[in-house]
Amino acid sequence: MADQGSSITPRAEDYSQWYLDIIAQAELADYTPVKGCMVFRPNGFAIWDLMKCDLDQRFKDTGHVNAYFPLLIPVSFLSKEAQHVEGFAKECAVVTHHRLRAAAGGGVEPDPASKLEEPLVIRPTSETIIWHMYGQWIQSWRDLPILINQWANVVRWEMKTRPFLRTAEFLWQEGHTAHATSQEAVEETLRMLDVYEAFAKDVMAMPVIKGVKSSSERFAGALDTYCIEALMQNGWALQAGTSHFLGQNFAKAFDVTFQAASGEREHVWATSWGVSTRMIGAVIMTHSDDTGLVLPPALAPVQVVITPIWKSDAEREIVLGHAEKVRKALTPAFRVKVDARDTVKPGAKYFEWERKGVPLRLEIGPRDAAGDSVFAAPRIPLLARGGKKFGIPAATVADGVREVLAEIQQALYDAALERRASTMRTPTAYDAFKADIEKGGFVQVSWADDAANEETIKEETKATIRCYPLVGQEAAVGTTCFYSGRPATHIALFARAF
Amino acid sequence: MADQGSSITPRAEDYSQWYLDIIAQAELADYTPVKGCMVFRPNGFAIWDLMKCDLDQRFKDTGHVNAYFPLLIPVSFLSKEAQHVEGFAKECAVVTHHRLRAAAGGGVEPDPASKLEEPLVIRPTSETIIWHMYGQWIQSWRDLPILINQWANVVRWEMKTRPFLRTAEFLWQEGHTAHATSQEAVEETLRMLDVYEAFAKDVMAMPVIKGVKSSSERFAGALDTYCIEALMQNGWALQAGTSHFLGQNFAKAFDVTFQAASGEREHVWATSWGVSTRMIGAVIMTHSDDTGLVLPPALAPVQVVITPIWKSDAEREIVLGHAEKVRKALTPAFRVKVDARDTVKPGAKYFEWERKGVPLRLEIGPRDAAGDSVFAAPRIPLLARGGKKFGIPAATVADGVREVLAEIQQALYDAALERRASTMRTPTAYDAFKADIEKGGFVQVSWADDAANEETIKEETKATIRCYPLVGQEAAVGTTCFYSGRPATHIALFARAF
Repeated sequence: MADQGSSITPRAEDYSQWYLDIIAQAELADYTPVKGCMVFRPNGFAIWDLMKCDLDQRFKDTGHVNAYFPLLIPVSFLSKEAQHVEGFAKECAVVTHHRLRAAAGGGVEPDPASKLEEPLVIRPTSETIIWHMYGQWIQSWRDLPILINQWANVVRWEMKTRPFLRTAEFLWQEGHTAHATSQEAVEETLRMLDVYEAFAKDVMAMPVIKGVKSSSERFAGALDTYCIEALMQNGWALQAGTSHFLGQNFAKAFDVTFQAASGEREHVWATSWGVSTRMIGAVIMTHSDDTGLVLPPALAPVQVVITPIWKSDAEREIVLGHAEKVRKALTPAFRVKVDARDTVKPGAKYFEWERKGVPLRLEIGPRDAAGDSVFAAPRIPLLARGGKKFGIPAATVADGVREVLAEIQQALYDAALERRASTMRTPTAYDAFKADIEKGGFVQVSWADDAANEETIKEETKATIRCYPLVGQEAAVGTTCFYSGRPATHIALFARAF
Repeated sequence: MADQGSSITPRAEDYSQWYLDIIAQAELADYTPVKGCMVFRPNGFAIWDLMKCDLDQRFKDTGHVNAYFPLLIPVSFLSKEAQHVEGFAKECAVVTHHRLRAAAGGGVEPDPASKLEEPLVIRPTSETIIWHMYGQWIQSWRDLPILINQWANVVRWEMKTRPFLRTAEFLWQEGHTAHATSQEAVEETLRMLDVYEAFAKDVMAMPVIKGVKSSSERFAGALDTYCIEALMQNGWALQAGTSHFLGQNFAKAFDVTFQAASGEREHVWATSWGVSTRMIGAVIMTHSDDTGLVLPPALAPVQVVITPIWKSDAEREIVLGHAEKVRKALTPAFRVKVDARDTVKPGAKYFEWERKGVPLRLEIGPRDAAGDSVFAAPRIPLLARGGKKFGIPAATVADGVREVLAEIQQALYDAALERRASTMRTPTAYDAFKADIEKGGFVQVSWADDAANEETIKEETKATIRCYPLVGQEAAVGTTCFYSGRPATHIALFARAF
């Protein structure tokens, strides 16, 4: 990615290339010699760090604690839960040896003498190893609930990859909770879905639709998979987080029972829920434009860049002094950087920080210094400000910046919401449906649940059921399926998806 | 570990078992079915989270940024640096396949059709993959320095493991920096050693000795390995962190050059530095006692536990109300928990929280509530307080707690320092040396650097050179080696070590 020059392909021309250009130009990620694995460069990783920090607090606020389970899982564990083996025991990185030796032709090779008795897989997800451990820890109802989250790397061997969105190795958090009753587990599943929705909205400035997956899109081993679905600028959907009600499937597979208050032994109820570095892709694709990366202030590693402008040495001293005063006034409330490089022209600095998605630039020239103010240039035009640059008095710069950043955060959310609303279509027949799918955006229909029909539609239109939205299902009652004409069972949201 | 009952083996009886008992009783870790891999249970992982948070800020304060590189490394990379292959290309987890298939006898097995052309190893450390990437990123002196840190899991296949101290998979941070000059790289190496020393002292309450390794203990691929060495309660040393000056070894192996300001192409200079979850083991073994875990307040996930005591329901209401008031006064400045369980007797609560290492217990009975105070019971006796429990007025409880926690933090450090000083010995002959090594503690000697002699001493006494301390080397001048009688080249610190 590092060698693609400094131009960004417009979205209208080639959306996929635009996405890759944004990532390269903002130095968010890079390819590696390991197939399917990427490097999170500092600018990209800092976004994940901010996401992690915010989410971790939300998990703690809802009673969860962090733990860490092994990276490696015995292969036999994957086949213990029947559906799980179907879903996950396939494209995995398999560890078969534990030693290298010098190879005859130079270099090194796996030492045959070090072959493992049982191969290990790098976790594609950790339900199996975690439920094995829960089996050791849970004896009675007093040990429940267990509310554990793990921040970890996982590997799923992917042939077709796209930075952040689909890579062999990715980073994520996986919550794994154990409960005494079905009801408690369902409540937990929905609670965490709400946490994800609030995070997407408040931090990512990304509107999402909460829903439940159809059986064909359900997580391998779950009774119900809930999700949040977002809409990207090219009209494709993106699943941004999932929360699974696992019932007693894993408890039964790993024989995890507890003594209920009644004295009876019962199987434990489970949930799991996760979001991943795919969310970085989601935030890039939700907000960025043809100039470069656009980040919501809450996720911007640098929220404010101060660019001093001077001609003479005398001006330089005054302007840098003023810039430093402003920086101090904004620290530590905001993540601020002063770009005092004298090897780069102001215009080139503007261009660079716009490309890198810094939400707010504060220009400081001799006149601003003299007038004890700064000149504010938001990364996106703010309608309430006439879409123009504007001055902020230096004396109240922290308040001014707080206000502008809040406006930017809100404007990004509003724009994404408006985009989703304006492309939401509700056809009642398959022909209209097909045309609507071509246009992009969510397509909402009355639907009679049927996996075979779902498969046919996917083959013919490349669209899948993103979810049955949690809100508004009552509208299905008394309507007929747009595809089969049978009585509708659900309101379904279709779209092409990443 | 979960099933070893609730008693802790005294240190004097069996130090190794004591360590395992502490871990089990405080629920810090557990064994897993994966050989050499452990679970970090929530109580243990929370210590790591606190360490990480503090260290991460220190890294940022010294100009570093985080990034994330792939878990998997092509085997050929490991053999590019001659010494590195010796040190690391051996006991590694080797990934050879990327798919499982149903096995004839049930279960799953690696699919032979998915065999990788080139095997991958799970990173034992990331110099090779990182220097490959630096080769893509570094063109000119303007690209330098690169100051990157990574928080990651690594795997080194270990046969003999001990929770936290030595496990196949462990968590760590690895800093990898690239510089234009040797001098800058050496300065960075020593700067990070100072960061580790300050962290060990201020946060872990653990005195350490900074030094440089002898050639036989040097990191594979480094020109110099610096370390911090701590002393555990059984008189063994523990290497708690390392900082390596790598010279141009990796830059040469991966052909990473830059155009200097002079116009010439030169190889880049490198450092790497890391601390790991082994530090959790270090902090446990530095401070804990026969009652259970002892944690310095800076690393205690729960710093203050409030234990209300009541007999009647009326008392219960008053006492819990008072406890809640105190909790609020201490939040969020401190990590506080109120133990209001009515199924557990106060004595059992005291015992439990002592075992789990909570630095300060605040007892609140009806008399304390009436007197608007709390009764403070530090986890370790504070000499300045006569080693007894004492009252703190509720009105100033936050100040009172801050003071007590600072006293505990200091007392732990002082005790560890005193222990180290009182066991430090300086023999001048090999017989005395052997006797001193048997006693435990650091043994400081005049030494003529010689790898063969070092090996003999290790075989005969199980002691190794922990380091040549950075401070006090001038004392070697004019003295003779305690072992060979030759003119001393160094002051060396020997000890048996974990």
